[in-house]
Amino acid sequence: MVTAPLGTDGYVVAVDVGGTSLKGARTATGGEVLETVEVPTGRGADAVDQVLSLCRSLAGPRTVAVGLAVPGLVDSDRGVVRYAANLGWRDLPLRDLVADELGLPVTVEQDVRAAGRAEAALDRDGAGGSLLLVVLGTGVGATVVFDGLPVVGDTSTAGEFGHVVTRPGGLACTCGQRGCLEAYASAASIARRYHAAGGDRSATAAEIATSVDPLALQVWQEAADALGLALAGATVLLDPAAIVLAGGLSRAGSRLVDPVHRSLQQQLAWRDAPPVRLSRLGSRAGQAGAALVAWEAAAALGTGRPAGRTPAPRLRR
Amino acid sequence: MVTAPLGTDGYVVAVDVGGTSLKGARTATGGEVLETVEVPTGRGADAVDQVLSLCRSLAGPRTVAVGLAVPGLVDSDRGVVRYAANLGWRDLPLRDLVADELGLPVTVEQDVRAAGRAEAALDRDGAGGSLLLVVLGTGVGATVVFDGLPVVGDTSTAGEFGHVVTRPGGLACTCGQRGCLEAYASAASIARRYHAAGGDRSATAAEIATSVDPLALQVWQEAADALGLALAGATVLLDPAAIVLAGGLSRAGSRLVDPVHRSLQQQLAWRDAPPVRLSRLGSRAGQAGAALVAWEAAAALGTGRPAGRTPAPRLRR
Repeated sequence: MVTAPLGTDGYVVAVDVGGTSLKGARTATGGEVLETVEVPTGRGADAVDQVLSLCRSLAGPRTVAVGLAVPGLVDSDRGVVRYAANLGWRDLPLRDLVADELGLPVTVEQDVRAAGRAEAALDRDGAGGSLLLVVLGTGVGATVVFDGLPVVGDTSTAGEFGHVVTRPGGLACTCGQRGCLEAYASAASIARRYHAAGGDRSATAAEIATSVDPLALQVWQEAADALGLALAGATVLLDPAAIVLAGGLSRAGSRLVDPVHRSLQQQLAWRDAPPVRLSRLGSRAGQAGAALVAWEAAAALGTGRPAGRTPAPRLRR
Repeated sequence: MVTAPLGTDGYVVAVDVGGTSLKGARTATGGEVLETVEVPTGRGADAVDQVLSLCRSLAGPRTVAVGLAVPGLVDSDRGVVRYAANLGWRDLPLRDLVADELGLPVTVEQDVRAAGRAEAALDRDGAGGSLLLVVLGTGVGATVVFDGLPVVGDTSTAGEFGHVVTRPGGLACTCGQRGCLEAYASAASIARRYHAAGGDRSATAAEIATSVDPLALQVWQEAADALGLALAGATVLLDPAAIVLAGGLSRAGSRLVDPVHRSLQQQLAWRDAPPVRLSRLGSRAGQAGAALVAWEAAAALGTGRPAGRTPAPRLRR
């Protein structure tokens, strides 16, 4: 649940624009999710129409803002989706399109950063709003959050954690490099490696995670070790208060967290590893983050504070 | 030169407490360094006495604050030096010691973070006050600066970039790990590796940097490649506006910057490398950063803003 900043009343509409489905919600000041809608995502202009239609259907007279979470390369400052492969969007001025249609303030945040904001807001008492969120799905992405705000980067491309090289000269990655984390620890890579090594060709990454087949155990452990190495590098540089694992692979629960934490600690000889835990918001994190950013924008309009620097509101589970 | 925030008058005293020498300065509102003092550093209580004595000698009736930059593990919020091996300090409440003695506001910042603040303030027009500063000296340290503020980390240990593993299973590092960046790219490691491989045993890292001996070229290139790999990992995660190289090895100039930039680009198949440049402030960076933090504290006392969140004042060369 998302709690609005003090002094903000009404509702926000939040939509997580995923490659598979659009997840929309209307959330109230008290943090209650009042209404949710989920539809399969189309592509290109169809997906834009779906976003508009979803926002219209969820918005009401007391809606104060709309928050969108979008995958890919997102320029939040200008509200432009520079590139979203799964949606077929390139240089799409999504904020202005939706704002013109609905006559409301609209925020656009990249989905991983939105999720990171939501997790950090939820975790504020524990980790001071600072953490490293790693999303382990078909690919591997991440966001670094400091004091509640995600690192966007100079070219809006921060968080490409899947392309940290963990095995110099190792497996070829789709990005053109060798030895990327993603070549070992994404759901797609884990399944591919298990199949290529002679494992059951119908097994998914989720099944490999819980299998006791020695081959599955080995592929899973190699994924955990690559993750541990990449996380060790991020830990010595950034000293995060917490590492949060999200995405499809996180459904493996302790079968993921325990070996990753062990591997991380083994690769940090001289300091304790930070706590590693599962995402608390799971598949709702992107939408919760979109709502959070929208609340911030609404609060900023009310108080004149710039949205990006508004203290993040509290999120409760 | 350090320019004070608007509305701050007077002088600050800034001291960079190095393991080799204490570098003190008195700087004016306009940014002018009015007076400098440098003395060889003692150890333990002697070094504390030297800091007090240096501050007393530089302070005057219009001094508004004292800024100290200290190596090691520094808790800036409490003004405590938790551990500084070269100085023989442990859990030293330096801020309160100096404040009690001088009756002035005192700030204590870790030296690499202070340098990063100063470089970022200087670079604000170029890089928006965000950068990765890497100090290549006897060891290898770094700081990540966002919007003018350095990342401190949850346990104040962010920036241990020398212990990013660049060669899994590689050379033993003093920290207990294998393959750390520092085992390849610190001045000490470069010299040790060159000597061990049969190179002239009197050659320093600086001499190896400019040597045309194939063995020297190889050791130097291996250092650049390890650095390139570690920087590539930081780049994909953080997308910094600039990478700034400082410390003793940076005196090699383009002999350092060019191969590091080349290696970084080679290890980033799918994106342009951020610009890599030398520190603009060189050995004055720690002191300039200490002055900057002291000016911020003085401004914050004047305006009631918390020091850590005061926009960093402009720094000119």
